[in-house]
Amino acid sequence: MHPVDYIARKRDGHELTKEELTAWIHSYVKGAIPDYQMAAWLMAVYLQGMSKGETSALTEAMVSSGETLDLSEFGTLTGDKHSTGGVGDKTSFVVGPLAAACGVKVAKMSGRGLSHTGGTIDKLESIAQIRTSLSVTDFMAQVKQIGLVICGQTADLAPADKLLYALRDVTATVDSLPLIASSIMSKKIAAGAQHIVLDVKVGEGAFMKTIEQGIELAATMVGIGADLGRNVVAYITDMNAPLGRSIGNALEVYEAVQTLKGNGPKDLTDICVVLAAEMVHLAKKISFEQAKTDVIAALTSGQGLEKFKQMVEAQGGLWDQAQNIPVLPQAPVTWQVYAMQEGYIETIHALQLGQIAMELGAGRERKEDAIDPAVGIVLHKQPGDFCTLEAPLATLYTRTEAQARRAQEKLLKAVKWSALQPEAVPHYYAKVTLDGILRIAEQTLLPREFA
Amino acid sequence: MHPVDYIARKRDGHELTKEELTAWIHSYVKGAIPDYQMAAWLMAVYLQGMSKGETSALTEAMVSSGETLDLSEFGTLTGDKHSTGGVGDKTSFVVGPLAAACGVKVAKMSGRGLSHTGGTIDKLESIAQIRTSLSVTDFMAQVKQIGLVICGQTADLAPADKLLYALRDVTATVDSLPLIASSIMSKKIAAGAQHIVLDVKVGEGAFMKTIEQGIELAATMVGIGADLGRNVVAYITDMNAPLGRSIGNALEVYEAVQTLKGNGPKDLTDICVVLAAEMVHLAKKISFEQAKTDVIAALTSGQGLEKFKQMVEAQGGLWDQAQNIPVLPQAPVTWQVYAMQEGYIETIHALQLGQIAMELGAGRERKEDAIDPAVGIVLHKQPGDFCTLEAPLATLYTRTEAQARRAQEKLLKAVKWSALQPEAVPHYYAKVTLDGILRIAEQTLLPREFA
Repeated sequence: MHPVDYIARKRDGHELTKEELTAWIHSYVKGAIPDYQMAAWLMAVYLQGMSKGETSALTEAMVSSGETLDLSEFGTLTGDKHSTGGVGDKTSFVVGPLAAACGVKVAKMSGRGLSHTGGTIDKLESIAQIRTSLSVTDFMAQVKQIGLVICGQTADLAPADKLLYALRDVTATVDSLPLIASSIMSKKIAAGAQHIVLDVKVGEGAFMKTIEQGIELAATMVGIGADLGRNVVAYITDMNAPLGRSIGNALEVYEAVQTLKGNGPKDLTDICVVLAAEMVHLAKKISFEQAKTDVIAALTSGQGLEKFKQMVEAQGGLWDQAQNIPVLPQAPVTWQVYAMQEGYIETIHALQLGQIAMELGAGRERKEDAIDPAVGIVLHKQPGDFCTLEAPLATLYTRTEAQARRAQEKLLKAVKWSALQPEAVPHYYAKVTLDGILRIAEQTLLPREFA
Repeated sequence: MHPVDYIARKRDGHELTKEELTAWIHSYVKGAIPDYQMAAWLMAVYLQGMSKGETSALTEAMVSSGETLDLSEFGTLTGDKHSTGGVGDKTSFVVGPLAAACGVKVAKMSGRGLSHTGGTIDKLESIAQIRTSLSVTDFMAQVKQIGLVICGQTADLAPADKLLYALRDVTATVDSLPLIASSIMSKKIAAGAQHIVLDVKVGEGAFMKTIEQGIELAATMVGIGADLGRNVVAYITDMNAPLGRSIGNALEVYEAVQTLKGNGPKDLTDICVVLAAEMVHLAKKISFEQAKTDVIAALTSGQGLEKFKQMVEAQGGLWDQAQNIPVLPQAPVTWQVYAMQEGYIETIHALQLGQIAMELGAGRERKEDAIDPAVGIVLHKQPGDFCTLEAPLATLYTRTEAQARRAQEKLLKAVKWSALQPEAVPHYYAKVTLDGILRIAEQTLLPREFA
């Protein structure tokens, strides 16, 4: 088949076979298909969609375009997690250690952030001297010894995804369900873990704006997992307000450590416990309730924190033994933000807070931008809280006072007030497995903290 | 607006403004928009369509991307014609001379052919020593002196079209109504004539397969003309069977000359008279009936032939004064094809005959292919004719006998037979003007030859 025929087939809404998709993607990675043909094809996929079978076949083609990590020496104990990205999302630093403390081999490769959602690797690099670039040998040794690694990509995993993502970014073809699902899953499949817990965020601060969009993406990714022999479960979680209280790289690592010490914000703690329990439940083949009991025990006993410390030190990061926290940079300016009125906080706009943090230097507007690890925002009040004029609403960590003043003005505009106590916002909406969708209202399996 | 926003707007089915389309197309011609972004945009246009306003604005942007020819010194007497392409289409060599003999300033720039439909310039170059590449000065002088030019593009007209067409060809975005209409019209508008007669071919051997598709394309082009200040009329004509009896470059020029001598096939003569009459009617502002009378007079008096001869000689082409025809090459093998059965010819598949001629060397499969001017097919029977076993059905002009044998086999398969005399196929289906669509059954204005 000529390249133009692959494009025409997709343009006309026909399905491509697994063999055709493999030939198409592999030819592109080899440079035999020019960008302009792939761009036309991507737009055809965007507008005509892809069947579930095609989406799985595309994912498999992207996986086989590069190397894959063989974690078979760890049997079926391997676990991974992925979040579709949100503001203040530091769950990996809590979920990974808790699951590892319960015996799961957590082998996680993460990316850097672009736009308002920071990347896990950027956040991890707030820790003084930590290495995030490991060889395959070191990666495997650390999984074996400690049972926990969080680092950048070790091998040349799913190179097709890297090429396609860069092209999608400049051709208005990012927001396509089959392309998003195959992009995420190709990296997860190539990274080798048997059990994959997905955190699909929905709301103002997420790529998926509605619960239904989130469920559709989740179901697609769970299906890809099944087709490619992996065990995938997805949670649909809220991203209308930031997750937890801290936004900013070092600030988020600090909050994750506080959470592992049992002092984390309730929303963050709840979600981390559920995600970790799900991973333990899948990997260790024990009931979800038992897994949850084990995860909470790992949290209260400090075993989770100890696991995180072991990981940081194994990767060369400095740990402050006196405070039992990683060694983190501090911003020169600390600025308290007070509310202009008393009242209940109805919501805090996640996307706007993400943008404020990005403008302070916590995120990247362009790929080449440098990250400032020290700056960011800590909220003292979250949705549902009552805020007086006396206690600060938030603290800003900035380079200059001028930056703090500008950020303060924007932050106050991002808060929506209510005279009456607003109804509690659920942190979590649904769980998607191969068996179907469990909505929060219908389910009884999940921990009470979520109701 | 960022390039990606132009793509996203079209992707989401929104309209782009005239200013936006101009910026987009001009930036592309300057090299500021890469091919991959234009390719994604073209696919978005293909799948989401364009409004009439957008299509006109796109055409205008393509026109203003390059030079335009100023024919204002000829007042409103200038005429041009364009055919969307079919098998055996040599109407330009008849319509142009007839209209010019009636006083229209016919200034026509044509292209070369690709695939089964040959190009007017390729056909013209069958004539020994003829020049088809003229300077603007020579072009203008010839319009002034003779009132007739048919040549390749003189100036850098609509360079955006050339770039876009090449990209559409490799990205499966050729068959898009707004893109086809703007491509054709941008060249016609840039070439400067005030009155433009379009011959939109429909059927097996044409790009547009159905009458309705042809009407839609015609109406779009007529609308573009009106928006850009030109007088455009389109005829929807049949291309299920080849037009006339000859297919092949020199053979078609010879048939055109025979037609100008009054000895042409009826279908070709009829269509040429109507198209020429339409051009005379528009340019000279006389009634269609009067224009038709004048055109028929130019045909029977030999003034049309004389005009063609003047044009050929002005462009350096050799004319055989004894036979009063251009000097044309001849193929070494002349091969008679006889039918395998007696009967009426119901139809002859235009596309299949075009492909046979192309395989003999009369057309190009790839842009770099050379044309053999001498080879081709002459049909002695057309749809509706009775064919015996004694008289040849067709004559093949080829380089070798082996080629002739292969062509004969295919030709016999391209003919559909009937025991009873089939109903006459209309040569013409509708006329599209700014006022609306005149279907053949409804109209009375058009000459009886068409009924």
